[in-house]
Amino acid sequence: MSRAWSLEEIAKHHTRSSCWVVIKNKVYDVTEFLPEHPGGAQIILKYGGRDATAAYEPIHPPDALDKNLSSDKHLGDVDAAAAQQITKERESRKKTKDEIRMEEAQARKPPLSRILNLRELEEVAKSVMSYKAWAYYSSATDDEITYYENMRAFSRFFFHPRVLVPVSKCDPSTTVLGFKSSIPVFVSGSALAKLGHPLGEANITRGAGRTNIIQMVSSNASLSYEQIAHSRISDSQPLFFQLYKHKDDKVAEQRVREVVGLGYNAIFLTVDAVVPSARERDIRAPFVLEDQEREAEQQPAADGQQKSTQETPRKPSDVDEEANVNVFGTAGGLIQFDDIDMSWKRTIPWLRGVTKLPIVLKGIQRVEDAVLAMEAGVDGIMISNHGGRQLEYSLPSIEVLYKLRKQRPDVFDKLEVYIDGGIRRGTDVLKALCLGAKAVGLGRPFLYAQGAYGEEGVVKAVQILEREIVTSMRLLGATSVKDLVPEMVERVDWQPRFKL
Amino acid sequence: MSRAWSLEEIAKHHTRSSCWVVIKNKVYDVTEFLPEHPGGAQIILKYGGRDATAAYEPIHPPDALDKNLSSDKHLGDVDAAAAQQITKERESRKKTKDEIRMEEAQARKPPLSRILNLRELEEVAKSVMSYKAWAYYSSATDDEITYYENMRAFSRFFFHPRVLVPVSKCDPSTTVLGFKSSIPVFVSGSALAKLGHPLGEANITRGAGRTNIIQMVSSNASLSYEQIAHSRISDSQPLFFQLYKHKDDKVAEQRVREVVGLGYNAIFLTVDAVVPSARERDIRAPFVLEDQEREAEQQPAADGQQKSTQETPRKPSDVDEEANVNVFGTAGGLIQFDDIDMSWKRTIPWLRGVTKLPIVLKGIQRVEDAVLAMEAGVDGIMISNHGGRQLEYSLPSIEVLYKLRKQRPDVFDKLEVYIDGGIRRGTDVLKALCLGAKAVGLGRPFLYAQGAYGEEGVVKAVQILEREIVTSMRLLGATSVKDLVPEMVERVDWQPRFKL
Amino acid sequence: MSRAWSLEEIAKHHTRSSCWVVIKNKVYDVTEFLPEHPGGAQIILKYGGRDATAAYEPIHPPDALDKNLSSDKHLGDVDAAAAQQITKERESRKKTKDEIRMEEAQARKPPLSRILNLRELEEVAKSVMSYKAWAYYSSATDDEITYYENMRAFSRFFFHPRVLVPVSKCDPSTTVLGFKSSIPVFVSGSALAKLGHPLGEANITRGAGRTNIIQMVSSNASLSYEQIAHSRISDSQPLFFQLYKHKDDKVAEQRVREVVGLGYNAIFLTVDAVVPSARERDIRAPFVLEDQEREAEQQPAADGQQKSTQETPRKPSDVDEEANVNVFGTAGGLIQFDDIDMSWKRTIPWLRGVTKLPIVLKGIQRVEDAVLAMEAGVDGIMISNHGGRQLEYSLPSIEVLYKLRKQRPDVFDKLEVYIDGGIRRGTDVLKALCLGAKAVGLGRPFLYAQGAYGEEGVVKAVQILEREIVTSMRLLGATSVKDLVPEMVERVDWQPRFKL
Amino acid sequence: MSRAWSLEEIAKHHTRSSCWVVIKNKVYDVTEFLPEHPGGAQIILKYGGRDATAAYEPIHPPDALDKNLSSDKHLGDVDAAAAQQITKERESRKKTKDEIRMEEAQARKPPLSRILNLRELEEVAKSVMSYKAWAYYSSATDDEITYYENMRAFSRFFFHPRVLVPVSKCDPSTTVLGFKSSIPVFVSGSALAKLGHPLGEANITRGAGRTNIIQMVSSNASLSYEQIAHSRISDSQPLFFQLYKHKDDKVAEQRVREVVGLGYNAIFLTVDAVVPSARERDIRAPFVLEDQEREAEQQPAADGQQKSTQETPRKPSDVDEEANVNVFGTAGGLIQFDDIDMSWKRTIPWLRGVTKLPIVLKGIQRVEDAVLAMEAGVDGIMISNHGGRQLEYSLPSIEVLYKLRKQRPDVFDKLEVYIDGGIRRGTDVLKALCLGAKAVGLGRPFLYAQGAYGEEGVVKAVQILEREIVTSMRLLGATSVKDLVPEMVERVDWQPRFKL
Repeated sequence: MSRAWSLEEIAKHHTRSSCWVVIKNKVYDVTEFLPEHPGGAQIILKYGGRDATAAYEPIHPPDALDKNLSSDKHLGDVDAAAAQQITKERESRKKTKDEIRMEEAQARKPPLSRILNLRELEEVAKSVMSYKAWAYYSSATDDEITYYENMRAFSRFFFHPRVLVPVSKCDPSTTVLGFKSSIPVFVSGSALAKLGHPLGEANITRGAGRTNIIQMVSSNASLSYEQIAHSRISDSQPLFFQLYKHKDDKVAEQRVREVVGLGYNAIFLTVDAVVPSARERDIRAPFVLEDQEREAEQQPAADGQQKSTQETPRKPSDVDEEANVNVFGTAGGLIQFDDIDMSWKRTIPWLRGVTKLPIVLKGIQRVEDAVLAMEAGVDGIMISNHGGRQLEYSLPSIEVLYKLRKQRPDVFDKLEVYIDGGIRRGTDVLKALCLGAKAVGLGRPFLYAQGAYGEEGVVKAVQILEREIVTSMRLLGATSVKDLVPEMVERVDWQPRFKL
Repeated sequence: MSRAWSLEEIAKHHTRSSCWVVIKNKVYDVTEFLPEHPGGAQIILKYGGRDATAAYEPIHPPDALDKNLSSDKHLGDVDAAAAQQITKERESRKKTKDEIRMEEAQARKPPLSRILNLRELEEVAKSVMSYKAWAYYSSATDDEITYYENMRAFSRFFFHPRVLVPVSKCDPSTTVLGFKSSIPVFVSGSALAKLGHPLGEANITRGAGRTNIIQMVSSNASLSYEQIAHSRISDSQPLFFQLYKHKDDKVAEQRVREVVGLGYNAIFLTVDAVVPSARERDIRAPFVLEDQEREAEQQPAADGQQKSTQETPRKPSDVDEEANVNVFGTAGGLIQFDDIDMSWKRTIPWLRGVTKLPIVLKGIQRVEDAVLAMEAGVDGIMISNHGGRQLEYSLPSIEVLYKLRKQRPDVFDKLEVYIDGGIRRGTDVLKALCLGAKAVGLGRPFLYAQGAYGEEGVVKAVQILEREIVTSMRLLGATSVKDLVPEMVERVDWQPRFKL
Repeated sequence: MSRAWSLEEIAKHHTRSSCWVVIKNKVYDVTEFLPEHPGGAQIILKYGGRDATAAYEPIHPPDALDKNLSSDKHLGDVDAAAAQQITKERESRKKTKDEIRMEEAQARKPPLSRILNLRELEEVAKSVMSYKAWAYYSSATDDEITYYENMRAFSRFFFHPRVLVPVSKCDPSTTVLGFKSSIPVFVSGSALAKLGHPLGEANITRGAGRTNIIQMVSSNASLSYEQIAHSRISDSQPLFFQLYKHKDDKVAEQRVREVVGLGYNAIFLTVDAVVPSARERDIRAPFVLEDQEREAEQQPAADGQQKSTQETPRKPSDVDEEANVNVFGTAGGLIQFDDIDMSWKRTIPWLRGVTKLPIVLKGIQRVEDAVLAMEAGVDGIMISNHGGRQLEYSLPSIEVLYKLRKQRPDVFDKLEVYIDGGIRRGTDVLKALCLGAKAVGLGRPFLYAQGAYGEEGVVKAVQILEREIVTSMRLLGATSVKDLVPEMVERVDWQPRFKL
Repeated sequence: MSRAWSLEEIAKHHTRSSCWVVIKNKVYDVTEFLPEHPGGAQIILKYGGRDATAAYEPIHPPDALDKNLSSDKHLGDVDAAAAQQITKERESRKKTKDEIRMEEAQARKPPLSRILNLRELEEVAKSVMSYKAWAYYSSATDDEITYYENMRAFSRFFFHPRVLVPVSKCDPSTTVLGFKSSIPVFVSGSALAKLGHPLGEANITRGAGRTNIIQMVSSNASLSYEQIAHSRISDSQPLFFQLYKHKDDKVAEQRVREVVGLGYNAIFLTVDAVVPSARERDIRAPFVLEDQEREAEQQPAADGQQKSTQETPRKPSDVDEEANVNVFGTAGGLIQFDDIDMSWKRTIPWLRGVTKLPIVLKGIQRVEDAVLAMEAGVDGIMISNHGGRQLEYSLPSIEVLYKLRKQRPDVFDKLEVYIDGGIRRGTDVLKALCLGAKAVGLGRPFLYAQGAYGEEGVVKAVQILEREIVTSMRLLGATSVKDLVPEMVERVDWQPRFKL
């Protein structure tokens, strides 16, 4: 079966009726896979009949081909001439404007020791990552109201600190589902870490291991679940798994069994992302990059005979364009085959039947659903609006937590409550804990940390949070997470000046 | 009677005592009509004795002359020499700065496939339409407080989404006065679509027909009611008529009977626009354009002998000016002869006597009037402040709806309630529906859509809304409009960061 | 006594022990008056021994010298040579940067017909008036919080308009203390109109007369009370007098008797300005102008040998400066001798004893004082914080009115209530009337109107207000001021976007 | 023991095993002191083996060496050649960019007579002080929320002024712990005045003495407590002492006994600063200055052969950097050895046992702690959040005072209550007094005043406050601090436009 293919032969297969692609010098027949590709057939066809490695790698785990393509579609390797040609083309390829910007930013980036807070990590990440990565990580739904309000909402909660309390001994550690954590913080699941850094999720795994916090791994990670498990610094390092449930229960079950087998320690079932939302910055990213390149191309020609920009029509025709516009963006592809008909009655029992691991519902957004979760007997809930990336105008997470604390304090006794969304400072963490959260998740900040500085960035992020948490606990008069109580927090009736 | 006139002959008639104008090579004696012209005599006199086609066309339906001028005032055609001269002058006319800007913007405008939301349609429209059109469409009363608050008000309503609800089947359709609509959205009545696009209201009619939503046609449309009816994609496509009631009941009755005869399906009686308000951007538009041209004229002269701008006094004398300033703007003219003395007691029964069509009151702005409408037995009310174009500091529509829901939920059982004003996103639509609206109207967004891309723009606008509505319904845990209930919405006590 | 003086002789008298000044070619000995000068001795000494006409005229009524200087201090005229010399110097004087700016702005100012609202009048006034005038008119206390909040507060009041009400007959007129007014607006007292326009307060008197509204004349007017009375367009034109009570009851009584004799129709006693406040823009104005001139002087020298700015030290020594800094600004001087010990018990009965005219207290700022006023039996109160020019953080006037309406509606039955502060639109007027005000006062807008366009500007301002008031009344469903009731207004719980 | 050392000999001692420094031509062996240095060993090692005077002086009181170093570590003087060399180096040292900026600003600064308010003093200070000083004084924790909210909070309190009250006699004086003060204002303790002005805290001492207000002296003053006491203008001038309690009770007791012996009159125990917080501007200051110098160095080289900035890598290696980054900033060093285990039970009695002076707790931030303080029998409490420099999201001081007044008015009868944080205007002072404060403290404004103009700046600051206080009292209808009552103040429900 396996043979070596010439580029000429490969090039013939670039249509819907026969579509081959080359990934790392291997040839695959993806014709039958086209309609099943989560990101759409069009994007594959764009690379039909040629090398697709550069586009493929940052957004697929290495086992994606094995999992999705039967072995008879693995047609073999390219031949020596082809391999040489591919290498040559890769090496001679002109850098894009975005790549040049990234290189310059890398040369200028501040030493990690100078980074004082998570926002600075984000700024560095924005400067050194590709625009595509930045757009995917930072984007949120529609006008990004919930994204921003998640953060702003914290600024309406103030402290009532106690003075004259001995605080030399101050322990910020806690447990999450029984697993120890050095601070009441874990890494919230987020997809495609490789977009931001070549080592991807493993940066986070190792960084979390070294600082004794827990990572929640997304179903849509860009490394395989196994690679991530193997990246742990010890076998006892806990890992949580964020399950995007496939619409086919069997496929979903297979996914759960895989991570159980790999030693993952809990299942966080995503319930707030049944359909893709419009994350406009992400969707717009290809246009932005295309326009940038077109501009760049026009500028060199400008020196000599200065062609009028009117002559070369700037805009692609609508017909060509249609193919390039994916209204669901990067994220849409990821969840295209997920279960849109999950229900309290069917899905929780199904998951209980598949695994004995603790189950947490991630994406609870109202008090009534917290109560339903309690009644369903899950081990925890995560108040989350997906970082403002799913339903626009979902309430800020801390506001939902505040409501839950006031309306149904009993829920906190029956299960563990976590929140994520908008947490950027140690004081944010403490506000959530005062209101009853057992721990909080941070998503983007860890993506930015690894995007900016790799594993060391992740370690730094935890160190920053730890310092902020311990300092603020002491100034609050608290020496352990048990001392953090609702009376220590007040929701004020004005909006502080909060810069975004 | 009909003969061919020379330009010399025509030119003699440019005064109040004898005023002729040429429209599309036809000669009209408008002397007696001068005092009745809704836009004022002065603007006609400006074109007295010469061709007025360019100024006339974009703001008058083609049957305006027939309806307003007895046939003996149709004096005949211009002669061949005159026709040639008019054509020559039109063709040799120097483009204005505004026209040049529009052409450049047309060349640069993005392909429709890249448009992601209604706001982008608005931006494109602003760039490609004439300043006059933009000023007329976008202007609102005084300081535009109600205009902006209409939009900002929606940002204070957040959702309580339900998770773990099967949502694969999700139907956003509804009925309005019994007529089916693919989404709970209709086109709110708005005047003068031809200002923004040569095909005018027909763009909207066809776009609405193709997407199965309903258009409300304004009494002040720039196509005739008949042209619009004939633009429907099928005879069963419903149309609503927005009635501006003429002060003369007979004239008003004639208008109603005309649209009934043409097959329109409901009457929306405008009750919030008895007198013109000060839409300052619209009123100011002629000055802005005049100043722009004057500046443009002075610049070419600047190369050689650079005359000081002091020498040629920039400003017109007050005497000349007075004629040009119309403190009621474009809109003022449109409603100058409307009924300023409508009343609950007289007007509703009169309208009931004229037609059997469903009657909706458009422009209800307080709870008490919603109750009066219910008692008056109308079929529906439309909570509206005319898009902030009539009474400044009228409450935002969504706030009035919220009050009505809280204070008089019974009203919703007796008649259909709609709102317009400030709706730009699918989430806005859903908030209104949760609070009890049967459907919502959008005015400006459709004017902008057709101004930017004609009929295709209108189709795109509906597609955007549909995608936003369906996505958000699913993320809310709703599969039909009946699932949208008040408990799903909360009015928060802070003002989110909402960019305008 | 009267003789002709040479400039040489006059020049000898420039010290505290003998100080003469020339005003309009007349010579005055002001030595004894120095300590009594409300603006301080220093400012007079600056002009000691020379012509002071240009500085004197814009801020003093013509009878100021007669009222303050005994006739033996009128030393006579300058001699012919002196008169010639003074004229020559005046004519050859180099224009200041500020004067040049004013002239250019006058040449560019828009025709009055294009002015659509009061804010545009303000903009024109700012451009054409002297900086000193602008600084004096526009300045408010400290950080100008109350000044801005006066305006912003109105934006929190929204309407509940009634539709389907016949409004063709709509009468905005009312009475103030029994005097007819074409609209419920009067001119609030304000000082020094001549600073902004050479004809000063008379512009307002005639403009008010022509439009049938009432002017309140300040004790600190820059024309004499008699000049103003004589500027009326008929003897029946009412005038109100704003009394700043002198600390010496006799002097104060004399002032009242003077205006009673001149036919003024009511006394508005100022109660919120017992001491000068810090209007920092006004105080800073001399520094700003001085720095501007210094800069201007340095620039011409720059062409040839470009002296370093370091060489000519920019700043005056502290010693010189002290004299120029008047921490009370222009306004401080005006009220320096006013009664700082007025009281309910003493002052109201005193005033009642002096005149039978209606008495209004201007400057009530809390509910309790409105009640005290009612008990004291005055004819009216004016809720005012002096346009934000006296106590910083006094509540916005409309907020005090709103409180009074809610807490003590009985007060409105016993006396007339007016307000001023922050009113710029017809809708503002109507909000105040709905809440119980009989009429409202506008101060700065009329100063700006006359500063920009003289008497015609004042007429225009009233026309704008009338159009805005009538239009809004009709859209509110009100046909007379009696229809304006509290139920038509709601104070909302959010802050609208209000541009300042 | 004492001998004269050569620079060669001294230069050998620059390591942890032997570290000498030269301060004012004296040689010290600080090897054993390295681990105890509050600012860290690293910063001393940077100057090991050489002259450290310039770095040492602005942030250490002159007795710091005596207090911290046993006399046998005072090794003697430098020799004559060394002294000459040190002087020569100091004189020939190139000025930094920051020093050049400061000199230019000094030349341009306005005369003191033109300064109208405290904010202008701050602006001048910012312009003339070193960046390091500005960063240390102005910085606050994290995102500076509490710092800004302290100020903004005052803007939500408005007055209810009384009119027609005789106010010619108006006395703003009060007592603080029985000591007379000309106005109800004292200087709040703040460290390191020498950073801003070479005469340091003595500027404040003399300025306070001349204007009859009281200075609270920080434990971390940059002059010795004795120098400050000797700077008083008379022996009867009261001084308060702000105690940062050392963790060793004996050391702490010694500190108290020293100031008691020097005649200080009260102890303000700091309770809100048990650990250093992250004042990021302060921490970042060294990087900012370093980058500024590096840039400055690269620019001269740019004229001739223009080296690419890429070639000389801009950023220091992480290894070098680590040493320079002090995450606690300047302030961290100051409190490093303070008592982190103070308690109600232990610390108050201990302090009572050490001194008979009045005791005030500085840093109370919630109602419950005010009550505990009352029960502990202290003489006063100071509601303070350390100017936003300790716990981020501590409530604004005026809000805590407002709560205390509403919830526990009894506390005000048992002890004196002061506040600091955000006070910049006389009206701020009066709001606090109306709500029950006996007096208020200002910290930064006095540091800025002395930084900008030395002692005269401090006098000016008090004069400004006095004028603002007296003017506002009179306009409020109050003639003594006793007239200032809660009814005069209202907390409004909107956020005024408050510029920062």
